[in-house]
Amino acid sequence: MTMIRASIIAGLALIAGTVEAQSGGEARAAARRHREANEAKILREFSTLLAMPNVASNHADIRRNADHLMAMLRQRGATAQILEVPDAPVSVFGEIRAPGATRTIVLYAHFDGQPVDPRQWQGAPFTPVLRDKALFQGGKDIPFPTDGQRTERDWRIYARSASDDKGSIIAMLTALDAMRAANLSPSVNVKFFFEGEEEAGSGHLQAILEKYRSLLAADAWLFCDGPVHQSGRLQAVFGLRGVVGLELTVYGPTRPLHSGHYGNWAPNPGALIANLIASMRDDDGRVKVAGFYDDVRPISAAERAALRVLPPVDSTLRVGLGLARTEADNAMLAERIMVPALNVRGIRVGGVQETGANVISTEAFASFDIRLVPVQRPDHVRDVVEKHIAAQGYHIVRDVPDSATRARYPKIARLEWEAGYPAQRAAMDGEFAKALLAALADGAAQPPLAVPTLGGSGPGYLFTEVLGAPVVTLPLANFDNNQHAANENLRLGNLWDGVEMYAGLLVRLGKEWSGRVVP
Amino acid sequence: MTMIRASIIAGLALIAGTVEAQSGGEARAAARRHREANEAKILREFSTLLAMPNVASNHADIRRNADHLMAMLRQRGATAQILEVPDAPVSVFGEIRAPGATRTIVLYAHFDGQPVDPRQWQGAPFTPVLRDKALFQGGKDIPFPTDGQRTERDWRIYARSASDDKGSIIAMLTALDAMRAANLSPSVNVKFFFEGEEEAGSGHLQAILEKYRSLLAADAWLFCDGPVHQSGRLQAVFGLRGVVGLELTVYGPTRPLHSGHYGNWAPNPGALIANLIASMRDDDGRVKVAGFYDDVRPISAAERAALRVLPPVDSTLRVGLGLARTEADNAMLAERIMVPALNVRGIRVGGVQETGANVISTEAFASFDIRLVPVQRPDHVRDVVEKHIAAQGYHIVRDVPDSATRARYPKIARLEWEAGYPAQRAAMDGEFAKALLAALADGAAQPPLAVPTLGGSGPGYLFTEVLGAPVVTLPLANFDNNQHAANENLRLGNLWDGVEMYAGLLVRLGKEWSGRVVP
Repeated sequence: MTMIRASIIAGLALIAGTVEAQSGGEARAAARRHREANEAKILREFSTLLAMPNVASNHADIRRNADHLMAMLRQRGATAQILEVPDAPVSVFGEIRAPGATRTIVLYAHFDGQPVDPRQWQGAPFTPVLRDKALFQGGKDIPFPTDGQRTERDWRIYARSASDDKGSIIAMLTALDAMRAANLSPSVNVKFFFEGEEEAGSGHLQAILEKYRSLLAADAWLFCDGPVHQSGRLQAVFGLRGVVGLELTVYGPTRPLHSGHYGNWAPNPGALIANLIASMRDDDGRVKVAGFYDDVRPISAAERAALRVLPPVDSTLRVGLGLARTEADNAMLAERIMVPALNVRGIRVGGVQETGANVISTEAFASFDIRLVPVQRPDHVRDVVEKHIAAQGYHIVRDVPDSATRARYPKIARLEWEAGYPAQRAAMDGEFAKALLAALADGAAQPPLAVPTLGGSGPGYLFTEVLGAPVVTLPLANFDNNQHAANENLRLGNLWDGVEMYAGLLVRLGKEWSGRVVP
Repeated sequence: MTMIRASIIAGLALIAGTVEAQSGGEARAAARRHREANEAKILREFSTLLAMPNVASNHADIRRNADHLMAMLRQRGATAQILEVPDAPVSVFGEIRAPGATRTIVLYAHFDGQPVDPRQWQGAPFTPVLRDKALFQGGKDIPFPTDGQRTERDWRIYARSASDDKGSIIAMLTALDAMRAANLSPSVNVKFFFEGEEEAGSGHLQAILEKYRSLLAADAWLFCDGPVHQSGRLQAVFGLRGVVGLELTVYGPTRPLHSGHYGNWAPNPGALIANLIASMRDDDGRVKVAGFYDDVRPISAAERAALRVLPPVDSTLRVGLGLARTEADNAMLAERIMVPALNVRGIRVGGVQETGANVISTEAFASFDIRLVPVQRPDHVRDVVEKHIAAQGYHIVRDVPDSATRARYPKIARLEWEAGYPAQRAAMDGEFAKALLAALADGAAQPPLAVPTLGGSGPGYLFTEVLGAPVVTLPLANFDNNQHAANENLRLGNLWDGVEMYAGLLVRLGKEWSGRVVP
């Protein structure tokens, strides 16, 4: 059956008012049946995609992946085209229009992967391996299934990008296959945006969104990436923290001095950097920079309600991480990441332990990543941090200070800011949020968790800032997927659940949504 | 003329009351005449000694040096013997008795040198090279002089231990030669203690002093090592700071965490170590540890008087070191080292600059050297620092904490203390101090500077604690001698001035001293 015929049938069903015939439970059951009958085939398609090297710095590799993805989209009846801006690896766009649908969503995924160090892999990063459980559980290599053979949910497929993020693409396209096989039509128009530069920092994402603004127009974006909740439950995540990085250098004498002969006289950069950091942040994460919290939006009632029903994970995490206590008197992780953080990611001055020497160093370095929440802006945070450092008596410079500068200012701080970006947070009580959660819950064994934000950062704010659309992150990967590291893997149970999730979502979302907005 | 005949003549002169015949000026003039007539020969003896490798870890090399030094001592009519304790490189003892002398001093020098990295040397560390000026001034290799040829004061001899500290030995033995040639006798009994393990930390010095207590009995020790004052003037230094080293480790989660996902929740070791250091010391060197200053002896009137007449060097040092301001509002270096210091010699956690990563680290390291002044004791300082760290909420451990400890204590600090030792400070208004300064001044173009203390540390306290004798440091090396580094060197003008200093000292000391104490 072709897609067009399926769409016609779906359209007819809609017209006939037989909405109840397309329940989430039916969609999920259809997805399961299709998957169970085609596990070997699905894994062959997945392996073929994973075998294509995909480090974003290799534009030719990215192009080969893109061409392959366009063919995969077209097999599902979607249109497909390349998105390109100068000097960037390409991205891929695809679209399936659903007759009668009044809403359009974009399913975002990325097909580039983190760089690999093959020596650290068991096997090779671009030669997918199936194992009967995780390596850390003693998993053994097993052959891929042949047609008709079934798999176990705890098996895992090992390869670069298995979980981050080619698995999402396989799951969503397999859901379309299952829907087609069961004559189920999407209830929303679906656009696909497969980015080819995410792991390299999405440096051209804004340019692509601006260039293809009308092509990418949608009511909402789903950012299909990342792991499920630490409890193992599916989660819809409504926000990401923003981030801005800072490299800080303070200065002592222009040559290293004997700490006996000059200690107590020459400024000590190790003491200076410690005192400066201590002036900025206490042991419990409270940032002492005046104005830092100015633009922090209070936690909303909907967010508070969502936090209250999240499964408890903190105690388990503390035990697993050897922590007797976490910051702010064991305050809940999910709530702590709703406020901004000033993280010390490194300090380096002189030597310690076997490299210690009785020396007053010439300079001290500290590195920070500052995590932002709505509606903090990177430029405001930069401004208040600089004012704070200046208020500690420092003259601020951007480059290595020259001798005239050093002779003039008692305390000098060099500040090198990384390009940052703001947080993203979709409303948890908006129409889209309600429709999304209802669509994900319909027919599922458990409703998804609604999580106000991840602690990590990503360019999700761009979809909202450039295109005006809300974005929600919808992950499927197992929590222990070795993301970004060697031996990245995806648990098959997570992939299969993802297929059912997308089928239920696509069948139900438009109905939940348009039912409210377009009566 | 033999030493015995010279001593008899000197003894007769003393009996005849012809003290004025042995003025410091005459002694210095005699030293100068002798040296000018023998520069080539003196440099040959120096080069032969410098050509003998002398890293303390090579006990056989140290023994060869010691045998050679004993022969050099015996050539001057001194007795000579090996001093040895188990498992240590040997040291050398020598003695010249002065008829009629009522006082005995020990001239301390060391003949071992710092380890060498030949790749960093211009030339080779144990192949002495003569240069027409310092390498950093563009100095060129020149041939060593032949008999009768003269040298220039700015020439330098390059080799390991040229300045630290074989030059002192050559200067004192050459002074004896010059005195013998001029029929001048020492006015004090002179013992020589040439240590073979100083640059390796003098780990066996206390054992040697205790074993040879009676052999080493003396009224005072002169520690002949180090560079002259930054102003270029000769200095007698009455003290050294003590020292105790500390390696501090604080802990975060047992595995590195993503600073986005866990920042603001997991304890951040970089922030912890910064806050802990900041609690211990401010930017101006003030130590905030309760009880730290308890045992600091006030600066004495004599020390204050000495500080007042020191040549100003601070402004020049600040300019040379690119410092617009030094700690405690540009307080004088010589006075700042009269108080104890808590020096941060290193901090290490996570990564900075190109090694920066968005990670909350598992631990943070800091390294300190704490400089002590009289009458602070290392054990008391350790005690108050540990009490301070405990008062910041830390559970103190000595080894890497096990999982039960980590699960129990919210904050854990691992403290590893290095063996320390107290300060040494000789009275500046005692009889020995007065005699020493008078002897060094008599006939000299300028009187020596009397410096209350060096900022650095050394085992000088042992001479006082084990043997009950005051010790004063009497350096001769040029300030820019590349001590401990590659291309160590001694300026010939400093060596020649040292010969005259020792001649004047040995001829005058007993007379200045016995004249006061033994009327």
